[in-house]
Amino acid sequence: MLSKQYSKNVNARSVIRDLFEYSKARAAEIGADNVFDFSIGNPSVQPPECVTKVAAEILANEDPVSVHGYPSAEGIPWVRKAIADELNARFGESYTEKNIFMTIGAAAAVTCCVRAVSDFGTNDKIITFAPYFPEYMVYARSAGVKLEVIPADIENFQINFDALEKAIDRDTRAILINSPNNPSGAVYSEETLKKLGALLDAKQKEYGRSIYIISDEPYREIVFRGFKVPYVAGIYANTLVCYSYSKAMSIPGERIGYVAFTDRCEDSDILLKVLAGAARDLAYVGVPALYQLVVGKSTGQTADLSIYQENKDILYKGLIDAGYTCVEPGGTFYAFPRSLEPDAVAFCERAKKFELVLVPGDGFGCPGHFRIAFCQPKEKVQRSLEKFRELAESYK
Amino acid sequence: MLSKQYSKNVNARSVIRDLFEYSKARAAEIGADNVFDFSIGNPSVQPPECVTKVAAEILANEDPVSVHGYPSAEGIPWVRKAIADELNARFGESYTEKNIFMTIGAAAAVTCCVRAVSDFGTNDKIITFAPYFPEYMVYARSAGVKLEVIPADIENFQINFDALEKAIDRDTRAILINSPNNPSGAVYSEETLKKLGALLDAKQKEYGRSIYIISDEPYREIVFRGFKVPYVAGIYANTLVCYSYSKAMSIPGERIGYVAFTDRCEDSDILLKVLAGAARDLAYVGVPALYQLVVGKSTGQTADLSIYQENKDILYKGLIDAGYTCVEPGGTFYAFPRSLEPDAVAFCERAKKFELVLVPGDGFGCPGHFRIAFCQPKEKVQRSLEKFRELAESYK
Repeated sequence: MLSKQYSKNVNARSVIRDLFEYSKARAAEIGADNVFDFSIGNPSVQPPECVTKVAAEILANEDPVSVHGYPSAEGIPWVRKAIADELNARFGESYTEKNIFMTIGAAAAVTCCVRAVSDFGTNDKIITFAPYFPEYMVYARSAGVKLEVIPADIENFQINFDALEKAIDRDTRAILINSPNNPSGAVYSEETLKKLGALLDAKQKEYGRSIYIISDEPYREIVFRGFKVPYVAGIYANTLVCYSYSKAMSIPGERIGYVAFTDRCEDSDILLKVLAGAARDLAYVGVPALYQLVVGKSTGQTADLSIYQENKDILYKGLIDAGYTCVEPGGTFYAFPRSLEPDAVAFCERAKKFELVLVPGDGFGCPGHFRIAFCQPKEKVQRSLEKFRELAESYK
Repeated sequence: MLSKQYSKNVNARSVIRDLFEYSKARAAEIGADNVFDFSIGNPSVQPPECVTKVAAEILANEDPVSVHGYPSAEGIPWVRKAIADELNARFGESYTEKNIFMTIGAAAAVTCCVRAVSDFGTNDKIITFAPYFPEYMVYARSAGVKLEVIPADIENFQINFDALEKAIDRDTRAILINSPNNPSGAVYSEETLKKLGALLDAKQKEYGRSIYIISDEPYREIVFRGFKVPYVAGIYANTLVCYSYSKAMSIPGERIGYVAFTDRCEDSDILLKVLAGAARDLAYVGVPALYQLVVGKSTGQTADLSIYQENKDILYKGLIDAGYTCVEPGGTFYAFPRSLEPDAVAFCERAKKFELVLVPGDGFGCPGHFRIAFCQPKEKVQRSLEKFRELAESYK
């Protein structure tokens, strides 16, 4: 007698959850050390010391009623100002607190942005690129709009511009990008982004209305040597930047993120209120207070992210040496090689025999690939190479 | 070029915000001490000492990666178990962690429950009672269902059963109640709740399907001498209890709440997953981690809520003595007297001349009344009585 829409899926299996259960059961059998669980993308490094220190100081010294009171729906003004200042210093922008809308993590930021640029139950369309974070489909569906997925450019995980150009039409409200990318680790180059900006500018002119970029950037700070993450809003005016401190500060449980938009962005004068309207429909009320304050006092700080660089170096070289085909990750803590048989689900099933727990690319809209979440201790990544080699051998 | 649905309201005035701006401006003119701002319902007492202490201890002693990691979507199992145990001890229930779904405050709890029992874009209907918390309308609209409001029983703010019985039909999925009530302070008696339960049982039989009670209980712990808040789930099986620690622990900014349902509740075996499905659509991801832990280690603790009792005693007696008609608040930190002219908006406008900042009942679906949020220092409540007397005099 409950909601039909939510009851019908309660017995649906989740690939990731099944893998999690499998991995736990297997660890109980042969010891956690011997299971190489690369399925879950949880930050594994310590938050920066300042995060804990600042939180403790606020608890010790500030008035609890004021610390834990209702923050305003848009976020605490001085926190937004601090974030604006940091972005200005890094990217040469001129944000003020009026350009920053605090959100309960990047998921809430993306959801609010999708709703801010589209209308429920219309033909409005958001375009994204495979491989993509599967929750995007949920955010679009629950906002009552269509998510169209452009097939992956599997050679380098940049943008398939021919397919994109064909897909953009009068109903296209936004292009949702995620660079550095989960699951591929790919980073859009300056060239890619400039080409995207030029295409969208042309299409805006053609249709006489705005097409926004919603830029989902939770992995912005995890960038590897030789790569650069260009600031999308610096390239294309109608960009809504969605950020999260989950990965940069290793505090995913505290749910702190934001949306940032420049004054060059179309309708920037009402955007804060439009975002707040969307957040209100979602019953967000406000963003957790203590960690808003912590983030505001810790701008510019990140966890020590160097372990991800080391893991990526070890893993990427090891995979290539073992004969895998893999686009070199430019950031994040993911690699997304091709599976050694066309059916990535079968491939990942076989990988279990070598104690490797991997996620098939199918759920990311990119079959024939698998995701390795290498947010694991370095020694484990190192030890896994032999397993990956044995797995490859088994296909010869 | 933004969303039409969210753009059209950006210039809508908010009564509460306007009052807030007025009050701030007036305080700058004549001093904050001389403005009696009773418009905002923010907890004004210190959180219990343990809340700060427990948070500091966790930060000092536990592994940050584990403290601030992603909690599971349903909430941290041992925290849910601790909450279940507390409810069992207080209300003689037999909850386990499987009966508790953590939420980002009571707003999220109510929203998830509305979606859990209804389907978007159908004729599904939720019924509530005036005076009611205006956000209920937003939650219902964004869930794509109708909210029908039963006119207030202005004699005692219990339930107008004749009107309710007429309103319940085959499309009625839930009755949304809020006791102790914002804005009236009224507490539903055991008699009222038993009568409600009996009516719903009969209607369930008549229609051959469940009708749930969604019981929004953020003020459960703020109860005045002579009143008792019966445990709704103990009276009616199909009850979804929505709770928040915002008022009980004075931590509204941390956004911690939960949904609780007994095993007697229809479809309780899938309810946790159904709620999680609704939460996923809303991009909730999870409930802030540190304060989940804090709440789990602080069950049974509340702020010192005695100030609200004192304020209520002073204010209620003072209002009655001054000639106002007011149902005695049984809980919360609100009183909801009748305005001294039929137009409560005009009344509240006149009140400003006496430096009283009050909220007209119209926004709560109950014209002819006004809300006093007495979460203010006692001396201020005391000093306000003279102003209320002068205001009453002005009508003679």
